Amino acid sequence: MKTDNSPARGMRDLLPADTAVRDHVLSSITTVYKRYGYQRIETPALEDIARLSSGEGGDNEKLIFEVLKRGLPPEVEPGTKIRDLVDLGLRYDLTVPLTRFYGANQAKLPVPFRSLQVGPVWRAERPQKGRYRQFYQCDIDMIGEPTVLAEAELIEATSEALAAVGLDNVTVRISDRRFLSALAAASGVPAELRDGFFITLDKLDKIGWEGVRAELASNGLTAETITKAADTITSLRDQPGSKVGDALANAIPGIPDELVADLSSTAAALDRLSARRQVSWQFDPTLVRGMGYYTGHIFEVARPDVSFSLAGGGRYDKLIGRWLGRDVPAVGFSIGFERIVDLLETQARRNAVAVLAEADVAPADVLAIARDLRDGGPGRDGGPGQEASPGQETGPGREAGHEVVEVVKRSGKFGAQLKRLESAGFTAFVHVQSQEGQVVRGDLRPLGDE
Amino acid sequence: MKTDNSPARGMRDLLPADTAVRDHVLSSITTVYKRYGYQRIETPALEDIARLSSGEGGDNEKLIFEVLKRGLPPEVEPGTKIRDLVDLGLRYDLTVPLTRFYGANQAKLPVPFRSLQVGPVWRAERPQKGRYRQFYQCDIDMIGEPTVLAEAELIEATSEALAAVGLDNVTVRISDRRFLSALAAASGVPAELRDGFFITLDKLDKIGWEGVRAELASNGLTAETITKAADTITSLRDQPGSKVGDALANAIPGIPDELVADLSSTAAALDRLSARRQVSWQFDPTLVRGMGYYTGHIFEVARPDVSFSLAGGGRYDKLIGRWLGRDVPAVGFSIGFERIVDLLETQARRNAVAVLAEADVAPADVLAIARDLRDGGPGRDGGPGQEASPGQETGPGREAGHEVVEVVKRSGKFGAQLKRLESAGFTAFVHVQSQEGQVVRGDLRPLGDE
Repeated sequence: MKTDNSPARGMRDLLPADTAVRDHVLSSITTVYKRYGYQRIETPALEDIARLSSGEGGDNEKLIFEVLKRGLPPEVEPGTKIRDLVDLGLRYDLTVPLTRFYGANQAKLPVPFRSLQVGPVWRAERPQKGRYRQFYQCDIDMIGEPTVLAEAELIEATSEALAAVGLDNVTVRISDRRFLSALAAASGVPAELRDGFFITLDKLDKIGWEGVRAELASNGLTAETITKAADTITSLRDQPGSKVGDALANAIPGIPDELVADLSSTAAALDRLSARRQVSWQFDPTLVRGMGYYTGHIFEVARPDVSFSLAGGGRYDKLIGRWLGRDVPAVGFSIGFERIVDLLETQARRNAVAVLAEADVAPADVLAIARDLRDGGPGRDGGPGQEASPGQETGPGREAGHEVVEVVKRSGKFGAQLKRLESAGFTAFVHVQSQEGQVVRGDLRPLGDE
Repeated sequence: MKTDNSPARGMRDLLPADTAVRDHVLSSITTVYKRYGYQRIETPALEDIARLSSGEGGDNEKLIFEVLKRGLPPEVEPGTKIRDLVDLGLRYDLTVPLTRFYGANQAKLPVPFRSLQVGPVWRAERPQKGRYRQFYQCDIDMIGEPTVLAEAELIEATSEALAAVGLDNVTVRISDRRFLSALAAASGVPAELRDGFFITLDKLDKIGWEGVRAELASNGLTAETITKAADTITSLRDQPGSKVGDALANAIPGIPDELVADLSSTAAALDRLSARRQVSWQFDPTLVRGMGYYTGHIFEVARPDVSFSLAGGGRYDKLIGRWLGRDVPAVGFSIGFERIVDLLETQARRNAVAVLAEADVAPADVLAIARDLRDGGPGRDGGPGQEASPGQETGPGREAGHEVVEVVKRSGKFGAQLKRLESAGFTAFVHVQSQEGQVVRGDLRPLGDE
């Protein structure tokens, strides 16, 4: 019986060419982060449903894959609520599990703790092109560091991680949730309209000032408030980094000293970084970012030739405290792993050698020839009558070992099979056949143009 | 509010020391497999519940974490069956998803296809020490190769992968499902008692011949049948590899020629392997292995100093055909990843350098010193007044870059903090302080006995 073998709706299989790119990106990024002291942790895919539904996940909480309790009777009793049948859910991000992880394991972790997380998350979104219901996230977080040392280091490490996959010359946009609150207060935005004010502001890139003004007005803000906010924002845009602190203090009287000091300190660190690395940065008074849990700096990384942000994050000093009973400062940065993978081309070339064996050659002989090619040096284990001592040193006339050596059975026309091998990423082959009961190994021959 | 922050029941968090061992084992094993041409694939964690429950998973099908359909009304209608609420489940192994993957993607895959899979699976087992409801499996499979070239290569590659994590000198035990059928038939075991006969035989190591005889008798086998089976098994145990084919043909008249030829060919390949590598092997007529889908060779890898098998697998020529409408030969091998990780010690030492910074040093200065230590060469980006040109070459008096450089804030007594750094895996430190407004960077000093 032939069946539909597609993956479950909205999911996908990853083929060797896919995993090759993904593994390259992952190992490049994690290698950089580890150099800064970030250490990989892993939490289970399943978390208690109560924790996943506690409000920290925003709209993602509507997209949870919920897991049925075990040991239920086969038929549901009348009046049963669906939520009473469920006790677990698949995580929709890596931040909510991280806050639980820190609460459970803090006694065993250094201060600050530099966390590196890479792994799948699940969201039951409506399937669409290029978006899947299971996808990877790649997050770093520094937990326990109250100063902007955390923000500045995360930004440096992330820009270097992106450069490691070829995405250098990025621009970092920075703002601060405390600035946004001060801006709203100074402009006269009523408390109950602030969330809507930020959401509209975030759309400036897309709908322009005219659109923003119209939306703010229809949300109930006065013309005076809108003009005041717009003038303040305009006066702060495109300020050179070293002037941001002073400009803020001038633009918004009564803005907290701590906020000005933090932004000045971050500016000094990023100016030093820009002098050494291909990274630029700017204060962006219209940057908002979605999640409600941010409390301080927020940031996004962009590149002129890419239409989406490559990474984003911010400080969330109150989130861990919710589960722990005391506040713990924390800053996180998430790299848009799937989008970055999509930017990079898949590469078929594997530098593999094919041992092209005729069907009548015994497995023992074929495998010995492949082993010989991996080990290096013909004659070491080259087939019957050619065995040499295992300790034999490399000397004149010996080959170096080949990294990937794959046994392939001869089939079809010889030339056509060589073409297939070449397009499958092989760069050379050895033909093995049996002649009058003797195994005959051909020379190593290149495939393709080389 | 303080909450219970434990992972969900039966699950666990992996700390940096855990992931360090796991990453080492995984990268060692996959590096070896890739040298044989195995390529990593990945399937989604969720599969359709109908496929997971189709009987191929054996007892594991009772342990599925089932996922609720999305968009259900909040209250269940009377008379609803639990199974009607569910459409997906978390995979309990990597074999069932692989058969679906092959059915969906075969047109894009080479023949034979060498698959490497590493990833978590989920089973709702009763939690117990050392067993978790989420754990990793590491499988290789060769799909599309009908001859024992597949079995012999998988055994060679797996023994080399185990050696790469220090588990050399393994012994491979081999049998064949066709032999077990022939043994049962030749001994006079009735068809309906065969499954029980195999299950009892599998216990020989644990309960001895006396226990096996008693259990077979209580299952309804005659004394004659039991004696005949026992004699045949005894005559086949401890045969040297090169004699296994002949011994089988003698012990069981009418045994299929193809089976004898296959075992002889495998024996020749493994004898050749043993001559070159620290691997021994034996034919074990009592080896059964649990899964019902095996059709040919079955094998397990053991080591005298370890009480469990390190890896196991076999040929399953009928499993993929069930979904595809035509049989496809396949052989698989699964490494006991979690058990192997448990065997290896965790290592705290990370060869990391700590930049030990007093609280009053600006982030910009601390981060520049850390950057300098990673890049190599004091003076390149060593702080105010010390900047050198980015292109400066390594020369006399310059340091090489350090692999891992982590910024740590000074806290508590100096000596006590150095002790904590040492036990956290740091091997050296640089003290950074601020004196009269100037940043002073101390020398690189070793931690511990070195």
